[in-house]
This record gives sequence, C-alpha cells and structure tokens, in this order.
Amino acid sequence: MKYCSQCGSSVEVKVPEGDNRPRHICTDCGVIHYQNPNVVTGCIPEWQGKVLLCRRAIEPRKGYWTLPAGFLENGESTQQGALRETIEEANARVAIGQLYTLFSLPHIDQIYMLFRGPLEDLDFGPGVESLEVKLFSEEEIPWDELAFQVVAETLKFYFSDMQRNEFRLRSGVIERLPGAERRYRTTLHEE
Amino acid sequence: MKYCSQCGSSVEVKVPEGDNRPRHICTDCGVIHYQNPNVVTGCIPEWQGKVLLCRRAIEPRKGYWTLPAGFLENGESTQQGALRETIEEANARVAIGQLYTLFSLPHIDQIYMLFRGPLEDLDFGPGVESLEVKLFSEEEIPWDELAFQVVAETLKFYFSDMQRNEFRLRSGVIERLPGAERRYRTTLHEE
Repeated sequence: MKYCSQCGSSVEVKVPEGDNRPRHICTDCGVIHYQNPNVVTGCIPEWQGKVLLCRRAIEPRKGYWTLPAGFLENGESTQQGALRETIEEANARVAIGQLYTLFSLPHIDQIYMLFRGPLEDLDFGPGVESLEVKLFSEEEIPWDELAFQVVAETLKFYFSDMQRNEFRLRSGVIERLPGAERRYRTTLHEE
Repeated sequence: MKYCSQCGSSVEVKVPEGDNRPRHICTDCGVIHYQNPNVVTGCIPEWQGKVLLCRRAIEPRKGYWTLPAGFLENGESTQQGALRETIEEANARVAIGQLYTLFSLPHIDQIYMLFRGPLEDLDFGPGVESLEVKLFSEEEIPWDELAFQVVAETLKFYFSDMQRNEFRLRSGVIERLPGAERRYRTTLHEE
C-alpha cells in the first residue's frame, strides 16, 4: 500500500497513538488503513464414505486437488460462503453442516473454516476454476497431489474420525517453515 | 474507496471479467481491490459459574458491557487474538478453550468467534478500552446494558448450557432489521 484510498495522498507506516502495531496511515487526511486476515470458507462434500475433490484450473497450485473453498464475501455468512464456493467450483449442492476444521495460517494471513457437507445428489461437475471434480475414498485420495496443507490435514482427520464415526471440530495453526521447500508445522489447539 | 492504494489513480466500481460481483478496480493499473469480512475474536472469561464483562470506554456503545473481543490481527491465530484481546481489555489471563459461538453479522461484514476461556486467576482490571471489568453470575448480567446483540446471544446460550453442563458450538447469523431502533433477527445454523 502506497497511497490513501480515501484521498490519494501518500501513506506512511507507523504506530498510531494508542495502538501498538505499525499501520498504513495517510500523511494528509490521517486515515488509518487497517489490514486484517481473510476468511476462506468451504466444505467437505460427502457421499457414502467418499469426499469430493476439485482439481484446480487456476493458480496457485494449478493441477492439484483441493476441497471446494474460497474467500468469504461481504454480506454473506460463513455457511453461505461455503455453499456458494461448492456450487462455483464443483457445481455441487450440499447441506452445510458441522464446522469441522478451523485453521489459522499466519504466514498468509488466512483463516480456514471447513464444514461437513453431505452431497444432495451426484449431479456435479467442474466449475470454471476446476479442471476435474471427483469422489475419492480414503484409499484413492491423491495425497501427494493435494493443493494445500490445510486440505491434507483436514482429510487426514476426517478419515480418522470416520473410522470411529465420531467427528469433532479440530482447530489449530498451520505454519510454513522457512526454506524454498513446502514444509509445514501443524499445531492442534487443545479443546 | 476512491483511489488506488497501489498507484494513486482513481478507482471505478465494476464486475471484473470472470467474476460476478462489483469490485473497486483501478482505472490506470487495473488492480482489483477486494473487500472482505473481518474476524472479531474474543472469549468468555469464566470463573466458578460467573463470566467477566468489560464496560466499554470507547465508541461504539461506550458505557455498555461486552465480552473481551476485537479484530483479529495479521500474523496471529484466532485463539492468540482472543488471548490478546482479553489481556488488552481486561488485563486478564485465560486458557483459551473450545470455540463456543461462531456468528456472521452480514450487515457490518463481521464474523464473530468467541471461545470459552477459564480465568487463570482473579488478578484482572480495566485496560485502556474499558471503564470497568467485573464478574457476573447469570442473575447479575446487565441484560439491558449489553453493548452488542452477539454478546447477548452468546451469554444466553452460555447460561442455558451451564444448567446442563453441556456446552456445544452455536453458529448462525445475526441480522439487523431495518429501522432506527436496534432490532435483530438471529438464525441458528442446524448442526
């Protein structure tokens, strides 16, 4: 951020009076431009022990598999957002249920919320952001071709809970470790 | 938003190609400025059947009582944010536990996450944003002087669950009804 979106003057980064974090502040009108994490909302579309994954048609991680999810929009609830993303990416209708994972990804300032979502029918197919949409059993999951760590963690918990048929909310932090390689540390929050 | 924060040129509101919502787009450099809901994170500080409330020293709703909560900051998890807000507003240390309410407030584009938070000791007191900090039993809650509907809903569920000693996540939508009066409709999500 270089310019004030209110008046067009330049901004500087400093700690406002009474605050304890550096913010972007307009040098002319004085408006403070706060920047906060975004919510990504989505679901685990379920059908008889299988889950629906989408192969991404767009960057980042084009060609890799993911759960239907995307940025929560203004004016909608987290469940409405999850429903919308599932329609947009998989042309699939689900009944959004229990919040299943709540993960903070501080390295990219995102909060992921993934709900359970029983499919209402098998009439699904790729939306414009997907190359392919397919149901997978635990054995069929392409673990090495998953787009994001948060998807891998969610599916791991999901299939482990399925064995016991007892699903509970998992929340925690996924941090990317330093280095060029994609390596992560997941810390579960004790509930 | 009137100016591009990247290049300082004017922005226009239109639907970008491949999108279906109007966005602020720079007329010069073409950058799309997305606007998304903010997360408010906080907790219910608990002590032997009572909860800690803070009387607000700042607007909005100055002088009214609330649970310690505030905007999630970049680089922190939702639980870390809840912990920080509880220290800032009530100088209180809690052990952040179970996510207890998840409410979407579409009229102000906020997502509220309130966790249970057993107090670690009774050494608390007002931070700079609070006039007063006090423990309340159910009978003592100042129901007519609560700052926000989301706080009232959360406390209502909380004390009802306390009777059964069985606390479960409530999620839903709180909408402000049209009109000058503060009237709301709360819709719980079926889980």
